Amino acid sequence: MAKIEEKLKAMGVTLPPAFKFAKPNRRGCMTVGRMLYCSGHGPADLPGVKRKGKLGGELSLEEGQGAARAAAINILAAMKEHLGDLDKVERIVSVFGMVNSVPTFEQPSQVMDGFSDFIYELWGPDNGWHTRCAVGMVTLPGNQPVEIKTEWLLK
Amino acid sequence: MAKIEEKLKAMGVTLPPAFKFAKPNRRGCMTVGRMLYCSGHGPADLPGVKRKGKLGGELSLEEGQGAARAAAINILAAMKEHLGDLDKVERIVSVFGMVNSVPTFEQPSQVMDGFSDFIYELWGPDNGWHTRCAVGMVTLPGNQPVEIKTEWLLK
Amino acid sequence: MAKIEEKLKAMGVTLPPAFKFAKPNRRGCMTVGRMLYCSGHGPADLPGVKRKGKLGGELSLEEGQGAARAAAINILAAMKEHLGDLDKVERIVSVFGMVNSVPTFEQPSQVMDGFSDFIYELWGPDNGWHTRCAVGMVTLPGNQPVEIKTEWLLK
Repeated sequence: MAKIEEKLKAMGVTLPPAFKFAKPNRRGCMTVGRMLYCSGHGPADLPGVKRKGKLGGELSLEEGQGAARAAAINILAAMKEHLGDLDKVERIVSVFGMVNSVPTFEQPSQVMDGFSDFIYELWGPDNGWHTRCAVGMVTLPGNQPVEIKTEWLLK
Repeated sequence: MAKIEEKLKAMGVTLPPAFKFAKPNRRGCMTVGRMLYCSGHGPADLPGVKRKGKLGGELSLEEGQGAARAAAINILAAMKEHLGDLDKVERIVSVFGMVNSVPTFEQPSQVMDGFSDFIYELWGPDNGWHTRCAVGMVTLPGNQPVEIKTEWLLK
Repeated sequence: MAKIEEKLKAMGVTLPPAFKFAKPNRRGCMTVGRMLYCSGHGPADLPGVKRKGKLGGELSLEEGQGAARAAAINILAAMKEHLGDLDKVERIVSVFGMVNSVPTFEQPSQVMDGFSDFIYELWGPDNGWHTRCAVGMVTLPGNQPVEIKTEWLLK
């Protein structure tokens, strides 16, 4: 079994089907040279994951972190469909984390650690760290709590 | 006549002059290797296009889609000035679509289809699809309804 | 002395220590090929710089511009720590400037000129201009007035 998927299994994570976009004008992933560009993804539909609402509003910090982790799972599902094998990824490069927030919410970084800690654990200390933005958005598609855009380097 | 400009003509689109930035510290486009980076652009000043206002506020979904299409036209004008010929573009890669929104607006994706459908029609099913984010912003420069950042691959 | 640091000295700027991230899951900079990716940074802790508050709210345009300039200084500090020598940078490529704003604030571009004018002065007319977005955010980490994401080309 592939290494990253073995780790996912050990962490108790099963990848859902990749998100299906409403129109053919966009897709989840594109490879250009050794760079892998991923579309912004919201949280996967997993048990216990809140998929609607704003931080500082109806969602707690912990629920936001769970949504960010579930967005990572959605991104990995898109990458798995695109690449066939997640072991083709050398490392994560850049993360743009957008958190649906009320104007007084000040912890988008802590929310995004739900994503970053998960990916860091999967790819490890050499290839799991990344550059990052974590910022507050006035609204997101379907009122989802997070949307996360990523770029990765392939082997 | 160049292929993309022929298609634009057939679609009834005339490119306006490229947007002039207020200061020399920034420009519309930069080429690095085969990647073309474009600055965020708002809607071109075209008849019937609303160039101010928020989605979920004074602008309807259809007006937002028109503004997103007009932003695509502004981006193509900047690319034409920079490249000389739009046929130097192989494909669109990445789109970051920002929609000026009230906190309860949930359809930035539908707004951004005004951009994506237009580009998809121009470059076709092989080279017109892209990775995308479509998100809500609390405000944009001059209260414009959309700002769209793009990256393209050159031939 | 290195050229860029000589210019900084002539401008009266001393680089602070690079920002220390709370967790090892992210860092300030990553080199991939000749591209340098930098994490989003807020303003450096410098005398007279406002490091909290929204534009159109408690911060004036001038205070926002000062915060954007101070974010540039934080980014250069991160790059100096990562690269050792800022003269390894050929040019700035892409800037994504996020301004903590109330919904009626319309001048994120003018705020971001505090960043762009500073970098343009440092790298000069050939290598200091860049592609840019300047947009309004409903909130940012710790209520900081700006967060700025950058990409640079190395020599």
